[in-house]
Amino acid sequence: MTNQDDMKQPDSSETTPTSFVTVGDVRFAYRRFGKPSGTPLVFLQHFRGSMDNWDPALLNGFAKDRTVITVDNAGVGLSTGEVPDTVADMAHHAMVFIDVLYLTQVDLLGFSLGGYIAQHMTLSRPNLVRRLILAGTGPGKGEGTQDLNQDILAVASSPPSKDGMIALFFEQTETSQAAGAAYWDRLQTREGERDPYLTGNGVQAQRTALTRWDRNEDAAYPHLREIAQPVFVASGSNDLIIPTVNAIVLAQRLPKNAQLIIYPDSGHGFLFQYHTLFGKHATLFLDT
Amino acid sequence: MTNQDDMKQPDSSETTPTSFVTVGDVRFAYRRFGKPSGTPLVFLQHFRGSMDNWDPALLNGFAKDRTVITVDNAGVGLSTGEVPDTVADMAHHAMVFIDVLYLTQVDLLGFSLGGYIAQHMTLSRPNLVRRLILAGTGPGKGEGTQDLNQDILAVASSPPSKDGMIALFFEQTETSQAAGAAYWDRLQTREGERDPYLTGNGVQAQRTALTRWDRNEDAAYPHLREIAQPVFVASGSNDLIIPTVNAIVLAQRLPKNAQLIIYPDSGHGFLFQYHTLFGKHATLFLDT
Repeated sequence: MTNQDDMKQPDSSETTPTSFVTVGDVRFAYRRFGKPSGTPLVFLQHFRGSMDNWDPALLNGFAKDRTVITVDNAGVGLSTGEVPDTVADMAHHAMVFIDVLYLTQVDLLGFSLGGYIAQHMTLSRPNLVRRLILAGTGPGKGEGTQDLNQDILAVASSPPSKDGMIALFFEQTETSQAAGAAYWDRLQTREGERDPYLTGNGVQAQRTALTRWDRNEDAAYPHLREIAQPVFVASGSNDLIIPTVNAIVLAQRLPKNAQLIIYPDSGHGFLFQYHTLFGKHATLFLDT
Repeated sequence: MTNQDDMKQPDSSETTPTSFVTVGDVRFAYRRFGKPSGTPLVFLQHFRGSMDNWDPALLNGFAKDRTVITVDNAGVGLSTGEVPDTVADMAHHAMVFIDVLYLTQVDLLGFSLGGYIAQHMTLSRPNLVRRLILAGTGPGKGEGTQDLNQDILAVASSPPSKDGMIALFFEQTETSQAAGAAYWDRLQTREGERDPYLTGNGVQAQRTALTRWDRNEDAAYPHLREIAQPVFVASGSNDLIIPTVNAIVLAQRLPKNAQLIIYPDSGHGFLFQYHTLFGKHATLFLDT
């Protein structure tokens, strides 16, 4: 007997239980919630981040209109398996995960490292991706780009803390720092099991993958013209981790469907600082 | 006796009669329509353009939520007086016009030359301006900016035609050219009296003003840090007249409240090509 309640997706990030699905060596942890919609929006996370590092205010905004799926990629958070040391292998895992959920087409929101993965997925399986949101990310080395800041990446590899996270992700202004503190506090509102930040060997594997992409070893830069999907490129005005100019280069080199928004008074975490406005911009992009 | 109907503003750009108000040597022609709102949105027009060169689709979108005011500045279209050859004098005229309507605070949407005027007004009378939208414009000469294209300005000074306007304002793609043709056709839907494009000596005066600004003779570039208002900077991805990079420089140098959006597959006329999306972005900016 099917109970009507079983069909109903949970509607908030904080209360959605973690689900698991196993493919080969990897048991993927994921959460699916929001208004049932034709094309789910799949979120791909930043360096070391787990599902618990998405701002619930941002996720819940999207969940009002559509199905939201967050996932820990192989070896991250509550998922098992090895963290790969290339973006290509991370993209492979993410596509396998989408396939095993029987999703034939998704929208992707890739943030930072997640944006690298989203670009790789779009290039390798164009039919899988309807629309693409690239937040705080870059295309790899090319004309006009600036490298990932390795010093800052080293800092980001140390044990995470509220102060450290705010310093890395937010601008050195009162308004942005306050937005960072509010973001951190919202991250603590999850009910039920918590999903740990990546530590140990996996951190080095992710750093290797980031650095390879940055050197253009398997990056999207030479292939940007092949991306036919509409793309929304978004960045903070002063991103210390992946410099803002990379978003500009990305938008300039993508074919005619790339829209660029740069948010004021913000850094890498602009999408959390402006969760309402960014959510509205992204919704306009996804729905029109 | 006051008739209730006299209090109601017309709601569409095409049917609003032209009003006139005289100050000193200038009889200003203007149109005021839309939902009565606390802070009207005043539109400042591009090189040679009159009120009839605003896309009615764009104006009517804004008019659903707020009072819209379009105006011919001194010597342009249906207004009398001399066209000045400096942006400072154009800004002076526009401020006098706002004063004579007894408006104590307005939002400004300045497009191209109108964006120069809007910046000048904001710097000289900061209390007059609540929020500022700068579309297809630049701050004057400075680090990273590119000059106004003088060859294209010469072309833009010849008699206006549908083909010429589409070539100048829209991108060389099928989609953008089609959007240009649709824009031109919408311009023809005005009922009642028409408002002519600027010809004669006034054209040379506007060119001189544009060129002076571009050389930084009276431009905003050195003063951008003094603008404390929230600003929405918008540009097409490939503006042939005022190169897109000027919008990027503008957003980078404005204080912390400047949001930047660059629209894909478009040129100077991006705000007409994307009248719905740009209107929604601008409304989000004005209302939040």
